[in-house]
Amino acid sequence: MSAKVGVIMGSKSDWDTMKLACDILDELEIPYEKKVVSAHRTPDLMFEYAQTAAGRGLKVIIAGAGGAAHLPGMVAAKTTLPVIGVPVKSSTLNGLDSLLSIVQMPAGIPVATVAIGNAGGANAGLLAAQMLGAFDPDIAERVARRREAITRQVLESSDEL
Amino acid sequence: MSAKVGVIMGSKSDWDTMKLACDILDELEIPYEKKVVSAHRTPDLMFEYAQTAAGRGLKVIIAGAGGAAHLPGMVAAKTTLPVIGVPVKSSTLNGLDSLLSIVQMPAGIPVATVAIGNAGGANAGLLAAQMLGAFDPDIAERVARRREAITRQVLESSDEL
Amino acid sequence: MSAKVGVIMGSKSDWDTMKLACDILDELEIPYEKKVVSAHRTPDLMFEYAQTAAGRGLKVIIAGAGGAAHLPGMVAAKTTLPVIGVPVKSSTLNGLDSLLSIVQMPAGIPVATVAIGNAGGANAGLLAAQMLGAFDPDIAERVARRREAITRQVLESSDEL
Amino acid sequence: MSAKVGVIMGSKSDWDTMKLACDILDELEIPYEKKVVSAHRTPDLMFEYAQTAAGRGLKVIIAGAGGAAHLPGMVAAKTTLPVIGVPVKSSTLNGLDSLLSIVQMPAGIPVATVAIGNAGGANAGLLAAQMLGAFDPDIAERVARRREAITRQVLESSDEL
Amino acid sequence: MSAKVGVIMGSKSDWDTMKLACDILDELEIPYEKKVVSAHRTPDLMFEYAQTAAGRGLKVIIAGAGGAAHLPGMVAAKTTLPVIGVPVKSSTLNGLDSLLSIVQMPAGIPVATVAIGNAGGANAGLLAAQMLGAFDPDIAERVARRREAITRQVLESSDEL
Amino acid sequence: MSAKVGVIMGSKSDWDTMKLACDILDELEIPYEKKVVSAHRTPDLMFEYAQTAAGRGLKVIIAGAGGAAHLPGMVAAKTTLPVIGVPVKSSTLNGLDSLLSIVQMPAGIPVATVAIGNAGGANAGLLAAQMLGAFDPDIAERVARRREAITRQVLESSDEL
Amino acid sequence: MSAKVGVIMGSKSDWDTMKLACDILDELEIPYEKKVVSAHRTPDLMFEYAQTAAGRGLKVIIAGAGGAAHLPGMVAAKTTLPVIGVPVKSSTLNGLDSLLSIVQMPAGIPVATVAIGNAGGANAGLLAAQMLGAFDPDIAERVARRREAITRQVLESSDEL
Amino acid sequence: MSAKVGVIMGSKSDWDTMKLACDILDELEIPYEKKVVSAHRTPDLMFEYAQTAAGRGLKVIIAGAGGAAHLPGMVAAKTTLPVIGVPVKSSTLNGLDSLLSIVQMPAGIPVATVAIGNAGGANAGLLAAQMLGAFDPDIAERVARRREAITRQVLESSDEL
Repeated sequence: MSAKVGVIMGSKSDWDTMKLACDILDELEIPYEKKVVSAHRTPDLMFEYAQTAAGRGLKVIIAGAGGAAHLPGMVAAKTTLPVIGVPVKSSTLNGLDSLLSIVQMPAGIPVATVAIGNAGGANAGLLAAQMLGAFDPDIAERVARRREAITRQVLESSDEL
Repeated sequence: MSAKVGVIMGSKSDWDTMKLACDILDELEIPYEKKVVSAHRTPDLMFEYAQTAAGRGLKVIIAGAGGAAHLPGMVAAKTTLPVIGVPVKSSTLNGLDSLLSIVQMPAGIPVATVAIGNAGGANAGLLAAQMLGAFDPDIAERVARRREAITRQVLESSDEL
Repeated sequence: MSAKVGVIMGSKSDWDTMKLACDILDELEIPYEKKVVSAHRTPDLMFEYAQTAAGRGLKVIIAGAGGAAHLPGMVAAKTTLPVIGVPVKSSTLNGLDSLLSIVQMPAGIPVATVAIGNAGGANAGLLAAQMLGAFDPDIAERVARRREAITRQVLESSDEL
Repeated sequence: MSAKVGVIMGSKSDWDTMKLACDILDELEIPYEKKVVSAHRTPDLMFEYAQTAAGRGLKVIIAGAGGAAHLPGMVAAKTTLPVIGVPVKSSTLNGLDSLLSIVQMPAGIPVATVAIGNAGGANAGLLAAQMLGAFDPDIAERVARRREAITRQVLESSDEL
Repeated sequence: MSAKVGVIMGSKSDWDTMKLACDILDELEIPYEKKVVSAHRTPDLMFEYAQTAAGRGLKVIIAGAGGAAHLPGMVAAKTTLPVIGVPVKSSTLNGLDSLLSIVQMPAGIPVATVAIGNAGGANAGLLAAQMLGAFDPDIAERVARRREAITRQVLESSDEL
Repeated sequence: MSAKVGVIMGSKSDWDTMKLACDILDELEIPYEKKVVSAHRTPDLMFEYAQTAAGRGLKVIIAGAGGAAHLPGMVAAKTTLPVIGVPVKSSTLNGLDSLLSIVQMPAGIPVATVAIGNAGGANAGLLAAQMLGAFDPDIAERVARRREAITRQVLESSDEL
Repeated sequence: MSAKVGVIMGSKSDWDTMKLACDILDELEIPYEKKVVSAHRTPDLMFEYAQTAAGRGLKVIIAGAGGAAHLPGMVAAKTTLPVIGVPVKSSTLNGLDSLLSIVQMPAGIPVATVAIGNAGGANAGLLAAQMLGAFDPDIAERVARRREAITRQVLESSDEL
Repeated sequence: MSAKVGVIMGSKSDWDTMKLACDILDELEIPYEKKVVSAHRTPDLMFEYAQTAAGRGLKVIIAGAGGAAHLPGMVAAKTTLPVIGVPVKSSTLNGLDSLLSIVQMPAGIPVATVAIGNAGGANAGLLAAQMLGAFDPDIAERVARRREAITRQVLESSDEL
């Protein structure tokens, strides 16, 4: 089945965080593609990737980057698909720079920003699933069942205090 | 036509920002509903709103709040629809508190966060449209045409320097 | 003797910090209950917990959470008991996000916020004890004796420089 | 009836914020006293105030200060009554300095910190009321009724969007 | 004489700041061109501008932008000319977001960042002049004379205290 | 010879930083005394210490503390001797809380604040020496010779690159 | 009588803040000199000023600057007199940049930093007076009387609430 | 061949970061000189270095420093050559202090600031090369080839996900 979600990242070093998005998509049986696409080091590839995304059948793009994180916003400028931005934790400012570079987009071009670091990686996968699930009851059902499982885990964890 | 987008806000004072989301939805001919729903002052209404949203046909919820902004995250906890969070500019910390309260969600429950303040208000409307547009070519087309118009405006504005 | 203080936390991983509150309550012989209650993953349990707290005889609730820490504020929205919020240190922003998410509550629903991390965990226990001690001379006396002991420790520690 | 709450502030210029605490206490019919007590300019008065507070029948102290806001923490060091700290908005750093100076107390001496500025002023009054209300059903009832009124206001405000 | 410096900005609203760069270039008799080029709203124009800059004889590009300020870094990714980034003061975070989005570039693609706001606007013009002046003694001389004039102004201003 | 400088700290755990002040004073042959004095845990001792400092012949007090660091400012409120504040690095906010709590004193009661952490510890000793040196040529001479030695070290270190 | 305190500032625009230091020195009858000395625009004058300060009889230098505030630290590098740094409130970052540029000096060269803005301006004058007062009982007496007057003002202001 | 770039740093401990600039210059065959020059500990050497830089044939100076990082700005004040500032990561505030101390220069004296820490170190070397490359096609060509190599690396790294 063709990919519904594109997962891209500015550097291979972002993979630890972005893998968590892919794990969620695997778990929810949502087909996706993954690729290193750097705003600054492969700008032409980035534009081409964004421009062709909808035509290839993608419904949402997840883009992770750190520091002066321009990838999500620039991809968003070249597609009308929704773009989820993951602020990867940076070595000097703990990802506050990544967060502000991604979330503070000017009116006109939004990026759906999630939390800094690994929580954001996982949540990017879930948010993509929820966007698809709004139009696909099967996916919505899988997201709902995953939540129920997590709820049970929380309830049980209380006994271990 | 029934509402596809729910626009809620924690206080009537958030309306200046949230109206910008509604303006975009009007412009793009996307039916929506709007309501003041406060996480802290109407918690039961908030839960009921979130729980019944998908059943009423909504595909995405836009929630704006300021300060300790719990509305987007709590609504997200009670629905599997995608939730867009708008960090309203706060009077003391300029919306940095709103932003962190909305974006730093734990793994499991994502909120699609946009920019602080008015840029975020407008972009929340656009992001909702893009989520719908991924499954509705007419909406995608209207978003694309809106972008072309903006591009022209930028090009023309250069002559006025 | 029935619990006077409820100690809840958003995740089992908050226990290291929240255990310090429980240790203080044990030391001061104040009966308490403890539980994992997640705002985002067990929202219904959270509301039920808050709503029934006063009826069960609790006089104060201590709630710890990290990141977009909504637990203390949402519990506070569903009870008129005083709620103490403990900002658990987060992995990316060192708990600054937890602090702002907890302390910046809008007018109408206060949360009694203590320090980020372990100092806050211990102080949450003490603050609960002081709230009870204002109406229970025995507890006030135990708090006072604990302070005298600490004062002596400080005085003695000076000789070890 | 003798004062149950002491409202103090580091400077007369903090009155705009601290008045909001007094307004709440008036509204909820809780007797209180108010006074300017400066940690740095009247340190001896501050110590005497804190030391005699419990003996005079106070059950909780509300202390507001801005900048290097030492008043709440120093008062807390000299009494076992619960102390609520209000970070007054400062002219240079918007109250972030006030907040950190008040909330980051070391283990041993807690301060119940509320939001920066006017929201914190009002909430300090409410928090004091809730502490008293845990032991006084009449006050708890008045707090609950006040919340119901606010809930109604929010619901009605939605019609004005 | 053909332009040596390209002055671009993400929005016409950045002109107040960027005009200061142009004023300095006028004063130092350095030919320049100016244009509104938006990373997000005119991405293709941006790439074309950057790619053709060196061929048109430009020696340095000054790019100003605010918020999630991607213009300087993306232009830098598409040219080997030095790019000076001006973080325009933003309405919500005072330009801290602009600064971090511009300065925190990953290894490989530098942006020469100057101060937030108007000081940065003027200094961008001076920095461009100094880069040219390193290879053009006339320009270096004009920069040096301008400094001497400023030094005299400072010395004289002291008498007005 | 009687102590000219008083070195105090809020906790024995501050000793690693404050020892650096003492090392400088030893090196410059300036007599000093050292003591743990906690603003929050030994408030009465703190007041007594400050009030008697000038009478005991001290000329300057160095006070180090972390987090909600009230010691330097409260000591300053109880003496007219100059007080040097050392913001000890805190475990959660890296000493930014310590810095703001110490430096943001209101008009009327200054604290001479130095850098966060170990640089500040050493510099507190040097600053005390320079205050004494303004009235004692021997100390000024020793400070000057120490600087010359450091200058030589820097010059030599360049060969090791 | 010859000046004991040198008051310098990086720009005439800092005068509003630095005048408050001069007002205190006037009030306490301490002779001083004042001058605009810019680290960046009059670097040679700055070095000469610092190098000759002790020889001219100055006992302490007060230096105010904003933004990348290098004046206090560079003056400190060229004299062994104590240097008080006043972080002038900056237009973009509210003086946080000024504060960090002044206070975070490396081990070896301290600057006695006071609060950002006007409180710091006034306190710089008081701190200088206290440094002198440690060796001049008359000045110490005047500082003490000033404090008593302020204490009385605080006590009286309480009646005006 | 005589040095075209001067690489200086405030302390030998900055070498790990500044070596990355030198590595780039070596790789691009650009002759440079390197030296420890401390603004605070060798102020006279710093002034002499800056004043003689242009005469010795340097075209650009790279200056790295941490904390209250005055070296780049002070060197810039004493030369009309372009100065690149590298904010070295500091131990307490992660280089945010270094960044603000370097980038927030007042109008009149610019510093071309790059990223905090190692990314900034490498980029300083590249930025210097690009400044030279604007006037030297061979250097521009080497920079361009280096970019192509990096682009290939990114493309290949994608296969390793």
